[in-house]
Amino acid sequence: GGFAAFTTVNKMYKEKDTTLFLDPGFPVHKQQHDVMGLKWENFDVYDYRGDKLKDKLESFLSKGNISAMIYSNPNNPSWICFTEKELKIIGEMANKYNVVVLEDLAYIAMDFRKNLFTPGEPPFQATVARYTDNYILFISSSKVFSYAGQRIGIMAISNKLFERKCPDLKRFYNSDLFGYAMTFGTIYALSAGVTHSSQYALAAMLKAANDGEFNFVEEVKEYGAKAKIMKNFFTDNGFKIVYDMDEDEPIADGFYFTFSYPGFTGEELLSELIYYGISAISLAITGSERLEGVRACVSLVQRDQFSDLELRLKKFNEHHPRQKANTEQD
Amino acid sequence: GGFAAFTTVNKMYKEKDTTLFLDPGFPVHKQQHDVMGLKWENFDVYDYRGDKLKDKLESFLSKGNISAMIYSNPNNPSWICFTEKELKIIGEMANKYNVVVLEDLAYIAMDFRKNLFTPGEPPFQATVARYTDNYILFISSSKVFSYAGQRIGIMAISNKLFERKCPDLKRFYNSDLFGYAMTFGTIYALSAGVTHSSQYALAAMLKAANDGEFNFVEEVKEYGAKAKIMKNFFTDNGFKIVYDMDEDEPIADGFYFTFSYPGFTGEELLSELIYYGISAISLAITGSERLEGVRACVSLVQRDQFSDLELRLKKFNEHHPRQKANTEQD
Repeated sequence: GGFAAFTTVNKMYKEKDTTLFLDPGFPVHKQQHDVMGLKWENFDVYDYRGDKLKDKLESFLSKGNISAMIYSNPNNPSWICFTEKELKIIGEMANKYNVVVLEDLAYIAMDFRKNLFTPGEPPFQATVARYTDNYILFISSSKVFSYAGQRIGIMAISNKLFERKCPDLKRFYNSDLFGYAMTFGTIYALSAGVTHSSQYALAAMLKAANDGEFNFVEEVKEYGAKAKIMKNFFTDNGFKIVYDMDEDEPIADGFYFTFSYPGFTGEELLSELIYYGISAISLAITGSERLEGVRACVSLVQRDQFSDLELRLKKFNEHHPRQKANTEQD
Repeated sequence: GGFAAFTTVNKMYKEKDTTLFLDPGFPVHKQQHDVMGLKWENFDVYDYRGDKLKDKLESFLSKGNISAMIYSNPNNPSWICFTEKELKIIGEMANKYNVVVLEDLAYIAMDFRKNLFTPGEPPFQATVARYTDNYILFISSSKVFSYAGQRIGIMAISNKLFERKCPDLKRFYNSDLFGYAMTFGTIYALSAGVTHSSQYALAAMLKAANDGEFNFVEEVKEYGAKAKIMKNFFTDNGFKIVYDMDEDEPIADGFYFTFSYPGFTGEELLSELIYYGISAISLAITGSERLEGVRACVSLVQRDQFSDLELRLKKFNEHHPRQKANTEQD
């Protein structure tokens, strides 16, 4: 989905050859650009939350070279969620500069601060689709339905974008219609399609969810519950949560959280934690400016491993007493 | 597989930016090049069979811009099969000019003139892999095991090619090792991988075939049997087989065959056959120079439809008596 979108959106307008990443983000998306030789720019949104986001976006988009903006919401790796105010800003900027928003909803409905499962009833998943027609949404069945091994996802293109005519597409495709270039051009060339049994399974899960018979959010709330407990193990033992606020509200507990330890860079911390049997990834590869940060993923940590985790973090803290010189940089 | 191979092989050497198609071939492979903006050249091999193939290949490869040669064997759409002499020429040219041969074995073991199913015993599938280490083989489970809906195939890279160091790959990848650039670069960026259940199923079918318990060739011989009957319906009613010889030997009966009707281009013939309830594809889109040709696919034609097919071809022939002026161009 992402690969197909980057490939096609990048060819819509000759002068718009660059993707803007609202980081931190999924490192593979940048690798996809590099393998294809496509250009990208990025910034870490954490210092530009709320009203500040507008000027920051405008500084990139006004140059005229940006074809698409991409971010995930809830965010991988930081689990920050854009507020409605921020999504409105992003949508307005997409309209003003004719830029496509690629919204990665891999963790749809997992902002557990709200109850996002009641078919047809608000509150709904926050999305830029309320504020612009220039959008493509991505939903991963591996996360939302814990249906990982069968490799199927959804790419939802707005009707208006699907029907957009872009003469520059003719440089690469038979059609100048965006939707046709995407489906009969890029996706047909790129993929042998998705296993038919996975398509039936996904359709059945979507129907059951929409009929109110399958509360998929309830199934994944365990991630939030585990994150709450695990974050406490970390903060009780001298660690800090790196990305901790959505504007003026504490972030949700979910699939990921980010932590640091005074006096360590993220990469140093990872090297040291390995000796305690704890692995994670450094935020350095996610486009984050918080180079002291590390991403924890809660999904494969079982509750019966919690006592081990707590003990290991306690030992780490004992062995690494915080020096005054170090704590100053908190 | 093909898309990943074109992407990666094209980046191995800066000066080698073009793929050579030994046509006729699968039109989607050229579409994949066009969508990515990659260059390609082509020629129709039918007039350059046997010893003539060497000079023809040399005329393309000696220019120094060709990174890969691609063909299918048995061939889609014509069902011609390269002889051992021709494969040896292709392999020697690949060695001399350091060009990768992309051999599409979608119809592996379906040259029914030989018994190609006895594990470990000759005769084996003819392949360029006997004559060069510069090869990637592609096998489609949808054809060989009639396992279409589950979307899985095999890309087999020779060990020597996998371990090839190409500094120019560093322009796009973290590694200059071809195998790493392919797997951790292109394929990882391009694909979410293959459904795990399909992987288990394919592994089980391959094991059963190798243990001699599952004669997959016997399962697909029906294609050849049907082709033999269907070809007769066509030739008995004024049609000609377009690609009919492998050097001095009549081609095999298999998945596809090609036909023409005196006085018609392939596209005119298709338009006219539609009125008789017969559909096919024109060879014009396959890189063939035989623009009078049409490809017939036998796979979905059932034996209980044979009487209909025969009747329709007979009526077509009655309604289109061959004019002297037309038959001259046979």
